[in-house]
Amino acid sequence: MALYQINISYDGTDFYGYQRQTDRRTIQGEIELALKKIGWKDDSIISSGRTDAGVHADGQVARFDLEWKHSENQLRKALNANLPADISINSLRQVVDKEFHPRFDAKTRVYRYQIYLSEHRYPLLDRFHWQIWPEPEESLIHTATQEFIGFKDFRAFGRPYQSGGRTVRIINKAEWIKKSDSPVRLDFRIEGNSFLYHMVRRLVFILIKVGQGRISISHVIDAFEGNDNLPAGIAPAKGLFLEKINY
Amino acid sequence: MALYQINISYDGTDFYGYQRQTDRRTIQGEIELALKKIGWKDDSIISSGRTDAGVHADGQVARFDLEWKHSENQLRKALNANLPADISINSLRQVVDKEFHPRFDAKTRVYRYQIYLSEHRYPLLDRFHWQIWPEPEESLIHTATQEFIGFKDFRAFGRPYQSGGRTVRIINKAEWIKKSDSPVRLDFRIEGNSFLYHMVRRLVFILIKVGQGRISISHVIDAFEGNDNLPAGIAPAKGLFLEKINY
Repeated sequence: MALYQINISYDGTDFYGYQRQTDRRTIQGEIELALKKIGWKDDSIISSGRTDAGVHADGQVARFDLEWKHSENQLRKALNANLPADISINSLRQVVDKEFHPRFDAKTRVYRYQIYLSEHRYPLLDRFHWQIWPEPEESLIHTATQEFIGFKDFRAFGRPYQSGGRTVRIINKAEWIKKSDSPVRLDFRIEGNSFLYHMVRRLVFILIKVGQGRISISHVIDAFEGNDNLPAGIAPAKGLFLEKINY
Repeated sequence: MALYQINISYDGTDFYGYQRQTDRRTIQGEIELALKKIGWKDDSIISSGRTDAGVHADGQVARFDLEWKHSENQLRKALNANLPADISINSLRQVVDKEFHPRFDAKTRVYRYQIYLSEHRYPLLDRFHWQIWPEPEESLIHTATQEFIGFKDFRAFGRPYQSGGRTVRIINKAEWIKKSDSPVRLDFRIEGNSFLYHMVRRLVFILIKVGQGRISISHVIDAFEGNDNLPAGIAPAKGLFLEKINY
């Protein structure tokens, strides 16, 4: 019996999220189904964390134990052959440290959020981007983004997965990358030790509203200080990607 | 009554191609349906040409006549409000020249074909790219691509839309753009006065096989000289985009 670490990408559009649910199509459920077809007998794989319904991934990480007599490459191919078209194992390797835990050992997580700026829909972008109009002011977005970097209490920007859980998180990096295509695209990339439920989508929503002049930066600062008057709302799931887990 | 030119983009995945068909979902059919909802009474719109089932567009062009009392911008919005999520009118303008014909007046057409290089599937790229493996040799692809540029008889690389039609075409430009992401992506862009049925997908298929060492460039040259021993095959529709019509 050996321990394997897999790096998974998926198009989350047609899933009810990552975590296994009875009678609903989930990413974890499909991977466990594929594993069972090649002789896996455990109850559950362990991953870096769940992603919500409709959220995508380039770099979700999971582990499982398996009795396998062939190469790592053959195992990856066998799994991919048994997975549906919207999930793929990008890489797979045997891990020596039997204690490796994809969630507890993760140092940071990187998420990406994709946006395009246009008054009308672009059908070729809609699957993986949030359409934004009017055009937000970049300097406002950049200034407000700085407010989210550091060791902070994010209770106004998401809730812990377990009720009563801590709401303090460390955000190392948060940046916007502009692609001057037609239409203009904006990628938001954020790296932190971990994230609250809906936190990235809430931050993106707030930052875009700041850029559009609908929320002032002082309201963001107030929210951190316990005086939360921010409007409700989160950015849609379809623009969000779990990009990388750093160990 | 005024004449309007529209620029259309669509995700072709869920259509039976551009051209209207009875009882099948097509791009032309959906646009005509949207037009009828705002009072259009004609029989048929005129476009730059059809695209096959599964082929996408960033820049399809069509014309129609309409009695419309409001602005161009309001007309574009009214049409988009009546179109399904996978079709959008990117721009619309009134045309003064009543003789404007999207097909006959087109000087050149530009197509783009999208590829990624990987041994395994990438679910986030699969919808709009052809997955290629093993990695083709770039110098072979570039050399072979030159064979397709110029005023040539392409009878070995497609068939005319009307039987007995001419097979000579002028290709002005054909180039590959490499994006060194992970995985590596290749965009093929080709501009010509017009194209035979399946011609772009056939060229891409042949060029990739040349790059993989499965077809020699001399066979491509032979095919132009009437000695066609090339293997059958075309690249899948999902990687192809009608990018622009130049007038």
